[in-house]
Amino acid sequence: MRTQTRNRWHLKKQLPSGARLGQLFTSHGTIETPAFIPVGTKGTVKSLIPEELKKLGVQIYFANTYHLWLSPGDEIIASLGGLNQFSHWDGPIITDSGGFQVFSLGRASFSPHDNLVGAGKLLQITDQGAKFRSHLDGSIHFLTPEKSIAIQLNLGSDIVLPLDDCSPYPLTPSEARASLRRTNIWFRKSWTYYQDQIRSSASPPLFFGIVQGSYYRRLRQQSARFLRQFSVDGFAIGGVSVGEPKEKMREAVNWIMPELPENKPRHLLGVGEIDDIFDFVRLGVDTFDCVLPTRFARMGKIMIKQRPWYLDITKKKFAADKRPLDSSCSCYTCQNYSRAYLHHLFKNRELLAYRLATYHNLFFYTTLMRRIRQAIRTNTLDNLAKEYEVI
Amino acid sequence: MRTQTRNRWHLKKQLPSGARLGQLFTSHGTIETPAFIPVGTKGTVKSLIPEELKKLGVQIYFANTYHLWLSPGDEIIASLGGLNQFSHWDGPIITDSGGFQVFSLGRASFSPHDNLVGAGKLLQITDQGAKFRSHLDGSIHFLTPEKSIAIQLNLGSDIVLPLDDCSPYPLTPSEARASLRRTNIWFRKSWTYYQDQIRSSASPPLFFGIVQGSYYRRLRQQSARFLRQFSVDGFAIGGVSVGEPKEKMREAVNWIMPELPENKPRHLLGVGEIDDIFDFVRLGVDTFDCVLPTRFARMGKIMIKQRPWYLDITKKKFAADKRPLDSSCSCYTCQNYSRAYLHHLFKNRELLAYRLATYHNLFFYTTLMRRIRQAIRTNTLDNLAKEYEVI
Repeated sequence: MRTQTRNRWHLKKQLPSGARLGQLFTSHGTIETPAFIPVGTKGTVKSLIPEELKKLGVQIYFANTYHLWLSPGDEIIASLGGLNQFSHWDGPIITDSGGFQVFSLGRASFSPHDNLVGAGKLLQITDQGAKFRSHLDGSIHFLTPEKSIAIQLNLGSDIVLPLDDCSPYPLTPSEARASLRRTNIWFRKSWTYYQDQIRSSASPPLFFGIVQGSYYRRLRQQSARFLRQFSVDGFAIGGVSVGEPKEKMREAVNWIMPELPENKPRHLLGVGEIDDIFDFVRLGVDTFDCVLPTRFARMGKIMIKQRPWYLDITKKKFAADKRPLDSSCSCYTCQNYSRAYLHHLFKNRELLAYRLATYHNLFFYTTLMRRIRQAIRTNTLDNLAKEYEVI
Repeated sequence: MRTQTRNRWHLKKQLPSGARLGQLFTSHGTIETPAFIPVGTKGTVKSLIPEELKKLGVQIYFANTYHLWLSPGDEIIASLGGLNQFSHWDGPIITDSGGFQVFSLGRASFSPHDNLVGAGKLLQITDQGAKFRSHLDGSIHFLTPEKSIAIQLNLGSDIVLPLDDCSPYPLTPSEARASLRRTNIWFRKSWTYYQDQIRSSASPPLFFGIVQGSYYRRLRQQSARFLRQFSVDGFAIGGVSVGEPKEKMREAVNWIMPELPENKPRHLLGVGEIDDIFDFVRLGVDTFDCVLPTRFARMGKIMIKQRPWYLDITKKKFAADKRPLDSSCSCYTCQNYSRAYLHHLFKNRELLAYRLATYHNLFFYTTLMRRIRQAIRTNTLDNLAKEYEVI
């Protein structure tokens, strides 16, 4: 039986500002935090092999339960030894609950004002779970809190997340209260099911609660306090980066942080612009996941230290530019290829374009996080923030 | 000035059957033959990096003059140090003349009966060259024999090919005669221009003549004899794999081979199914280029030793198959991933699918060629052909 008191988190240092240096322990390895977690939606961080992720300093990747459940199915993945063996990645994996995709793909758009049943879409939410139509083949599925945990356990995830009501922005106070009420009902079901399932597991995954509550201070506080009653391994902050202004997001995280215990890690869901990383590290966030670097890479947006933190390599002005993408970068792409070549690859939609750009963008993020950890050690976060033009 | 007698070819062994073991010397390295040359149309063997090509045993890649001329342009590539530096490949590169694409993309289809001007297409051929409409933006271009060589020199190719009249199949005798006449006129212009241009070059590229003549024995013989008058570095066989039955292709190569000197290498253009490789190696072909392994890879066709020499990994039966693509294969893909994972990647059009499959398929070809060279050394080609189910 799982020892609920086992410590899966080590806080190494905390600055007066709130920035923390820590270690998160999983059965597939230790994650040095603050850390950025790239997204490998379908069990692959697009275009790269796991050996490259390791070389880049990627410590953990984020897989999406919704997608893997629908294709190829969690049972097939379980029969193949779990997502680690399936995707040839021996490091830690974090999975979401599937809820976010059910909500965002099930609705015509991510707006609370949409008709939830119409235009070939379907989404029916009850305290039991969410009934929805697959975006792949239109088949009907029912995602319950228990089912979500069961899928994540089948995948062999190292950090599982409970199903939550993924509220769009903005919500009225009564919508927000109803949403949080449901999130909490689903949390209890998820937690009970999880505890029951891992009873006989020698190395159970970590379980993070998700703080919701939309943009209402009392609800955010209430959510955090509710979750603190349980011996969860950490806290994720959800319902952010859903269309709200940036300052709202900072405000909400500011409300939440004092409510969270220092002896548990905090993950910020779906956030990862460069200024966000700096700002939220300073507020005490330990881990981030975001599609930004990998999605940007496929659009030809190459991360650089200067605002707006990318250059668009598809622009004509780079057609004969002999320089590397980023002269200050020591990644494989920058060491060996010119902007002109990348421009050419993107213009011709060559597969190598996405690979070389993804490699660079993830190198940019892992380098940034390594430097942030070093800056926390040496109390030089402000200098680093200046170098990245954040302050 | 170039020493025309410099030997760029060393014939190490020749079997009574005709199969040869040789070495082709270029300024970017030596090619052990028989060799397979993968295609990197736009200066990239799709999805792979040059370090992987090296590791796979790829000795040389084939780039397309037509595509690189139109995008990004040979002058941009020259200004960036040539195709080697541009594409970060320090080995040899062979380029075609651009003619094949002008003819095949300029026509509505690769048929002599098409209206050559119509449906947004344009192709006007004279003894001076070929006027055509770019498939990219509709702009008009004029490819002359001299221009083709100039582009290839700008690219920094190691083996250049002259512009030829790329006849479809079948041709009437008079069409075939007219086509060969034009090929020979263009050859003289190409050769004169090439000789003039390389006069002061310390390390000029090799120049191969192209044997044409459609499916008429006398014309094929006439073409080979015409080319033998010039001190070309080798011979390419063109006008094959253009829709004719396989036995016709074998017949034509059989006509040509006795006409070619033993002390020059022979390249077969655009050919590369597994039985073709064995058959033409035995007829004395030294090098092959073909899009087959890389194109098949992107379609989910995974090369195996058993006829029809591939399995279609997109088929549903592989969805839960734990085995590697090919249990007898020691490539990176087969050592680390299951058929189920590749099936999943292909089904979801994940970028990694094309990369892992391309890696395997090229490994299959380089392994095959290495084993063919070994079999020529040890006189065991028949055994090898049986293993690959060719005989």
